[in-house]
Amino acid sequence: MLRKNYLMAPGPTPVPIDILLEGAKDTIHHRTPQYLAIQKKAAEGTQYLFQTSQPVFMLSSSGTGAMEAAVANIAGNGDKVLSINAGKFGERWGDLCRVYGTDLTEIKLEWGTYVRPEQIKEFLDNNPDTKAVFTTLSETSTGTVHPIKEIADIVKNTNAVLVVDCISGILAEPIKMDEWGVDVIVTGVQKGFMMPPGIALLSFSEKAMELVKECKNPRYYFDIRKYAKGHPDSPFTPAINLVYQLTKAVEMLQAETIEGLWERHRILGDATRAAVKAMGLEIFAEKPGNVLTSIKVPENVDGKKIISFLRDEWGVTFAGGQDHLKGKIIRIAHLGYMSKFDVIVGISALEMGLKKFGYDIEMGVGVKAAEEVFNKEGV
Amino acid sequence: MLRKNYLMAPGPTPVPIDILLEGAKDTIHHRTPQYLAIQKKAAEGTQYLFQTSQPVFMLSSSGTGAMEAAVANIAGNGDKVLSINAGKFGERWGDLCRVYGTDLTEIKLEWGTYVRPEQIKEFLDNNPDTKAVFTTLSETSTGTVHPIKEIADIVKNTNAVLVVDCISGILAEPIKMDEWGVDVIVTGVQKGFMMPPGIALLSFSEKAMELVKECKNPRYYFDIRKYAKGHPDSPFTPAINLVYQLTKAVEMLQAETIEGLWERHRILGDATRAAVKAMGLEIFAEKPGNVLTSIKVPENVDGKKIISFLRDEWGVTFAGGQDHLKGKIIRIAHLGYMSKFDVIVGISALEMGLKKFGYDIEMGVGVKAAEEVFNKEGV
Repeated sequence: MLRKNYLMAPGPTPVPIDILLEGAKDTIHHRTPQYLAIQKKAAEGTQYLFQTSQPVFMLSSSGTGAMEAAVANIAGNGDKVLSINAGKFGERWGDLCRVYGTDLTEIKLEWGTYVRPEQIKEFLDNNPDTKAVFTTLSETSTGTVHPIKEIADIVKNTNAVLVVDCISGILAEPIKMDEWGVDVIVTGVQKGFMMPPGIALLSFSEKAMELVKECKNPRYYFDIRKYAKGHPDSPFTPAINLVYQLTKAVEMLQAETIEGLWERHRILGDATRAAVKAMGLEIFAEKPGNVLTSIKVPENVDGKKIISFLRDEWGVTFAGGQDHLKGKIIRIAHLGYMSKFDVIVGISALEMGLKKFGYDIEMGVGVKAAEEVFNKEGV
Repeated sequence: MLRKNYLMAPGPTPVPIDILLEGAKDTIHHRTPQYLAIQKKAAEGTQYLFQTSQPVFMLSSSGTGAMEAAVANIAGNGDKVLSINAGKFGERWGDLCRVYGTDLTEIKLEWGTYVRPEQIKEFLDNNPDTKAVFTTLSETSTGTVHPIKEIADIVKNTNAVLVVDCISGILAEPIKMDEWGVDVIVTGVQKGFMMPPGIALLSFSEKAMELVKECKNPRYYFDIRKYAKGHPDSPFTPAINLVYQLTKAVEMLQAETIEGLWERHRILGDATRAAVKAMGLEIFAEKPGNVLTSIKVPENVDGKKIISFLRDEWGVTFAGGQDHLKGKIIRIAHLGYMSKFDVIVGISALEMGLKKFGYDIEMGVGVKAAEEVFNKEGV
């Protein structure tokens, strides 16, 4: 059977052909008014998508580069910081904070669970000299969403800044940087932004920019003062053709509106969750979000083999579990350039795949549940 | 809801990105050894796909251009010909034969039915001076397949040549030009060849080439003698970038093998038919083929509105009926660059669409039936 590719991993996500084609345009010089106008348009669009009036900086890096930039510009030797570790990417905040010599406390949670805002409040009440709280909007390794709005309500009344890894979460999950009082948002473009990887985005509140100015960490490429100085111009050579693509992506996303993006992802998430439950499967995340749905692999099914099989034989790329969850969960993303029919394809592949791997399931039950959600939503 | 495009009409069909990108290559001059090597490769590949050792000629035209070329080079003033008219495209053979002043007999059949080989035998027995029989492999307007092998068995023992419109049929339905003794095959590339429109292909047996040489019809652009003379070079400017794409398409199709292509389309057809029956719908064609499945629109459903709605709102392009079948049938193609998940999308769209337009249907029943066919086939 002919195999087409269905990219249903939580990044990279499918790239629309209109965005791909932007990357095929003539590479012009970046120190020109022609180029700067393009980059300015992208930068302004990202402000809307971050829901902020603060500048959004572009790094030529993966999302991890932006995470490092956040730490490197805010907290260093002996600075007291708190990080929330409930998965692979929460863990990364801790790794970065250790590299920069901070006085780190980690709230370590079982993977799949979410942090209770009270846990953060208690720490900050007891440690008023805390400089920063590092957390995650959507923990990509588990599919759980942390309650950022409630956390922001606590942190904004303290001296600490709130730094949120929104790499997979932004656009799929609501976040309003200015209104909620989030101090730093970092993301990468190969997720909700519907882009090939290569650009990271991040923005700092005025409160966070004060820390940036004071921060003594050694940093050069990731020195946010350099990016702030000439913004929206880049201190170093930007990824020119990726910026063309970002300008197009931002235009398409703005046309859908931020509320429209949240709503579309909510419906795709609802349909996937309904399908998964109808198939008799259990959702892994304690508080599942609209970026991806993580499913416990049923007993007797080989979780690693089914993922490889679906990808290699049928072209459907789901993600498996990471670290101790390898083989134990399947992660189905519904993120970025996704329509309701992508969910139908993903669920259909899962139905047929699970059956092939020995799971007792009636064909069509998952698709039926998803279709009923789409009918109910009138989409 | 974000709308992606799913092209499930019987032409044009979806074009793989690898073929699209060939069209973006530098346009070189056509009177060069570099270009000729490309065109030669395409021409040789099409011979395999036609299952012939005769040259396959390329016209810069739609499929109708190749139909006209077949008539214009074979039968003219007063020549006795027979044509089979069981739909829009069988009708076109008659129109062309009348334009060229032939002595035409049409076997007019109800749309949706197929010609019985005995009908042709009887005519040829009574009219041994018949020069040509014009018929259709897959009648695109109805989804019915005519029994070409059986017809060829009859015609090859007469003085007549057998001309078959394989525009939508080739690659999806078995046809073996040399082995079956089909004299002329015509097709266009925007169907099973997975190409954008713009090139038509046709080939003539030695028996048919004798008629081409004798034929007195006025013709210039479609004069097959000109194409035969320098083959695989073109007498007129070829559609250079489309030929790049055709070379790539032929390479991809050859890799799948002709038997693989027939088998894939057979499975996609089986799954669609099973789904449609499970949905309580009636197939329109008397002998449905693997190019498309035509469905009678259920009572109380507006056949025109549902087609427009699915296309405009959900991005799923089916074809409606033509002429007196307008609003009465829905044609779902499973032709060309199509995987099993395209069928799933099409059936899912039909389930949800029919429900929206008032048809009483349980969600998932069609998808279930299609999935069961794919499971049974082990694809």
